[in-house]
Amino acid sequence: MNDILGDWKRTHYCGHLNAEHIGREVCLMGWVQRRRDHGGLIFIDLRDREGIVQLALDPDRDPEAHQKADRVRGEFVVAIKGEVSRRPDGTLNPKMKTGEVEIEVRELRILNSAKTPPFMIDEFSEVAENTRLKYRYLDLRRPALQRTLMLRHQVTRIVRDYFSGEGFLELETPFLTKSTPEGARDYLVPSRVNQGTFYALPQSPQLFKQILMVSGFDRYMQIVKCFRDEDLRADRQPEFTQIDCEMSFVDRDEVLSVMEAMIARVFREAIGVEVPLPMPRMTYAEAVGRFGVDNPDLRFAMELVDISEIVSNSGFKVFSDAVQGGGLVKAMNIKGGATLSRKDLDDLGEFVKIYGAKGLAWVKVNADGWQSPIIKFFSADEVAGIAQALSAEVGDLLVFVADTFRIVNDALGRLRGHLGHKLGLIDKGAYKFVWVTDFPLLEWDGETRRHVAVHHPFTAPMDEDVTLLDTDPGKARAKAYDLVLNGSEIGGGSIRIHDRAVQSKMFELMGIGDEEASIKFGFLLEALEFGAPPHGGIAFGLDRLTMILADTDSIRDVIAFPKTQKATCLMSEAPGEVDDKQLRELGIKLVTRPK
Amino acid sequence: MNDILGDWKRTHYCGHLNAEHIGREVCLMGWVQRRRDHGGLIFIDLRDREGIVQLALDPDRDPEAHQKADRVRGEFVVAIKGEVSRRPDGTLNPKMKTGEVEIEVRELRILNSAKTPPFMIDEFSEVAENTRLKYRYLDLRRPALQRTLMLRHQVTRIVRDYFSGEGFLELETPFLTKSTPEGARDYLVPSRVNQGTFYALPQSPQLFKQILMVSGFDRYMQIVKCFRDEDLRADRQPEFTQIDCEMSFVDRDEVLSVMEAMIARVFREAIGVEVPLPMPRMTYAEAVGRFGVDNPDLRFAMELVDISEIVSNSGFKVFSDAVQGGGLVKAMNIKGGATLSRKDLDDLGEFVKIYGAKGLAWVKVNADGWQSPIIKFFSADEVAGIAQALSAEVGDLLVFVADTFRIVNDALGRLRGHLGHKLGLIDKGAYKFVWVTDFPLLEWDGETRRHVAVHHPFTAPMDEDVTLLDTDPGKARAKAYDLVLNGSEIGGGSIRIHDRAVQSKMFELMGIGDEEASIKFGFLLEALEFGAPPHGGIAFGLDRLTMILADTDSIRDVIAFPKTQKATCLMSEAPGEVDDKQLRELGIKLVTRPK
Repeated sequence: MNDILGDWKRTHYCGHLNAEHIGREVCLMGWVQRRRDHGGLIFIDLRDREGIVQLALDPDRDPEAHQKADRVRGEFVVAIKGEVSRRPDGTLNPKMKTGEVEIEVRELRILNSAKTPPFMIDEFSEVAENTRLKYRYLDLRRPALQRTLMLRHQVTRIVRDYFSGEGFLELETPFLTKSTPEGARDYLVPSRVNQGTFYALPQSPQLFKQILMVSGFDRYMQIVKCFRDEDLRADRQPEFTQIDCEMSFVDRDEVLSVMEAMIARVFREAIGVEVPLPMPRMTYAEAVGRFGVDNPDLRFAMELVDISEIVSNSGFKVFSDAVQGGGLVKAMNIKGGATLSRKDLDDLGEFVKIYGAKGLAWVKVNADGWQSPIIKFFSADEVAGIAQALSAEVGDLLVFVADTFRIVNDALGRLRGHLGHKLGLIDKGAYKFVWVTDFPLLEWDGETRRHVAVHHPFTAPMDEDVTLLDTDPGKARAKAYDLVLNGSEIGGGSIRIHDRAVQSKMFELMGIGDEEASIKFGFLLEALEFGAPPHGGIAFGLDRLTMILADTDSIRDVIAFPKTQKATCLMSEAPGEVDDKQLRELGIKLVTRPK
Repeated sequence: MNDILGDWKRTHYCGHLNAEHIGREVCLMGWVQRRRDHGGLIFIDLRDREGIVQLALDPDRDPEAHQKADRVRGEFVVAIKGEVSRRPDGTLNPKMKTGEVEIEVRELRILNSAKTPPFMIDEFSEVAENTRLKYRYLDLRRPALQRTLMLRHQVTRIVRDYFSGEGFLELETPFLTKSTPEGARDYLVPSRVNQGTFYALPQSPQLFKQILMVSGFDRYMQIVKCFRDEDLRADRQPEFTQIDCEMSFVDRDEVLSVMEAMIARVFREAIGVEVPLPMPRMTYAEAVGRFGVDNPDLRFAMELVDISEIVSNSGFKVFSDAVQGGGLVKAMNIKGGATLSRKDLDDLGEFVKIYGAKGLAWVKVNADGWQSPIIKFFSADEVAGIAQALSAEVGDLLVFVADTFRIVNDALGRLRGHLGHKLGLIDKGAYKFVWVTDFPLLEWDGETRRHVAVHHPFTAPMDEDVTLLDTDPGKARAKAYDLVLNGSEIGGGSIRIHDRAVQSKMFELMGIGDEEASIKFGFLLEALEFGAPPHGGIAFGLDRLTMILADTDSIRDVIAFPKTQKATCLMSEAPGEVDDKQLRELGIKLVTRPK
């Protein structure tokens, strides 16, 4: 075939060479990071996936190779043969893995040329995001992105190894699934064969993995793409990857212990971090009580304190009215926060308003006493009670929100997270895991006037709460659990309903009639009647997990071909136009023309 | 939580128990395969993923468990605690893996009941395909399907292990990609955010994996779903799974040797078959010459023989006219086929007509000479020449087709395959691999009056044929290769074009203008200008590969949730209806209402 490579075969990756290879003949292939001319010699930094090595071309030793090297520019693709040698004294580069050696090049072939790239392929270039996305193939050459995507690969390897050792089978579930009316956020795929009908892309393989349990596969896992037709957000993609698991004949404790061991193994093998097991657990009620949210960041303290009892009869009507109206008053002690300016305090007040609070009351604990617009309304007992409840010390800032249960927790919980970052309270190197359990099963949707499932409609109620389904369903707790890491939910799941009657009861509470249930979930419902085992599972977000492991805030660092609203050239970023023939075949017509 | 399992934890799988466990206390959970009452005792065959074990319930030993067992029916889900004991003499069952033991049950819990299933869950039930698909969750409980899906899991494990060891990275490519006009067979996904535009589901990650090579990831693999909007066929699904690979800085030989080692490992580890390496190779020209097809089944001989020269001036005008008109005459010796009846011969004649042949000439080699309607037209030299070319012996049947190159090879090649099965010529236990190489690059499409790529437009021409692109493009061969196993193509790939100018030339030959090329492939074309390495790859069909390993002809045996046109209840089988609100949000209208 007379291939461009002829009989040349690469012997090493550039980045793997070191003093041990001195004297060896090698054949390398890669990209030109940099070319320098120095006293007649040409030096080329040659880069591949594994790193960079220096090539030295001497016109006296091999004039032909030197001549070719003279034509080489940045990002040219070259192959060389040569000998690994120790760099001359004084030219060693201890910052490079390969810094002790260089290659004395004997032969050089230019495999491809390259136009001048719009930015340097290095760690340091500050390049506009837009440009980087437009030239994603160049951006992906940067060592930082190469590392995160290799890390992602490694994570999937570790996960699959672990689950395989635990007897899980990786089984594929379909992507083209039956669509149903009102399938909000489903991507729809019109059928050519059966015009007028649509497939839906799955938001998760939930029903399929439950069917696999009914089918007796016992332990299932899959690393699988899921789809949600939502606007793009900074940390969310319309297609995302889940580590999806399901187990039969297990209770919650077994699911949690199998899963936390998987996570610990990933952290150990991927980034060398030991995660102490078992991971701590916290009920939903405790999480919201102490931290205001169900995904608490445990890398710092600053817990919420309920002072409702102390201020229930306070002269400060905002507080006492809230308590007497069925709401509550909670406070947080921002240690050392007394130095915040009036402007800072105003900003915090604006922040809590986003979450529905009417305002943020505050007290500065100064050496000469409390300073606050509301201090005058409090009795000495109340001041003493608050001070004790919050362990107030000189220099602290106490902040308060009084409102309904939901607004108080939401506002203060979010404020806590905000301040954790803003005030640098977070221990950056820490990985704080917590299982949050015992979520509510249902919540009331005032708009549609029916209950909706907090997790999903297949989540089992806690056994001791089953009777509540008839009396006070909003109070029933679920066998649901989330794994929270550093304030981010990285996984969530539940023990599922395996009893047909309980499943029907759930649908009834959610206002889903028999016909609707049959259209949407008929296959599962029927399956539950033919010997469904007790089962439960969980799904982890691979994208989020990899972001945390790679210590990046940008989802675009962990996905090779992200979707984005900004870039215009990236092949996967945006949907495209189709022609009339295609539409005719699908039996559809455009109402709106593309912009 | 008072879980239904309480503090019970399964200790073993049913199918794993044997004489070594005698005396052990075990806790098992599974499905009731069968219940028998025998002299006051109840015996239950309990089944899980790993097999079946016999439970024995004695009313004297544990009346409560015995009583519960009395309520148990087929496919009930039960958990038991008991002791493994040796079966009484005379009741050992050597056909069962667990046939030496039974469990003396002390406690039994019914975890779920089951309606009477529409068919027995065993190896032997002959059940209508339709019923099996309707109750797929029950069908999937059958040991045969459990085994094939576990085998599929195992194959993906072996493949990933192998590639990981070879330095391949599993990188994810997008499912929602940019659609293009005329994207035949693309599934389209209307965008909600940008109404009037569509995503396309990928028919393969081809462009993305090439971009990953341009990005320097060096070695990529992915086990990935692909989509093709075509009618269902027996062996084809609209969503199918590929083992997709791409490598940089390699020529064809290196791709082939890395890939055949992977396949050999799969056969060794999954089914214990040693595949001799290197695998044989054959050019496309040789394959078509000897076997009429580019996917020859090498499990049996019966090659095609070109007798054009012998009969070019024959008195049998059908032969001589074909040769003189630029066509050819080929023949096949069906050893021992002289016993075929006139009806059989007529059927073979009808068979070749499907592939465009006007008829099938034949000669029976009898002890008393040749018997054939056409024998009278041949000279003695021609008879001798044919007899020698085909090594004709008494009892053989010689068959002939005279026509154009394409029709002769197609008709005789397919006939060969057909007879291989029909006459039992195939060595059933054999695995005959062959790499078919040097495919034509382009073929002429009379309808659109332009060249189309035989493999795909990114396949590189053979270096020595590059000049043919200007002079006689139809003659140019490609650096393309297929892996054929037992007459099935299980993989195909090529060395890709890494040179922008050659890529443009290809598009030009295919009648793809600059604008069209830019819309469809602009991202790749631009990338080729910024330092694309030489690269190539391949994709294997996981479904087909698993079918061969599992020795099944039905694709539904290797996919948990297949699509089918027959069944009506399977959740993934058919697209569904959507409501007006959903259509409005997508900016589309139905022209055709669903049937």
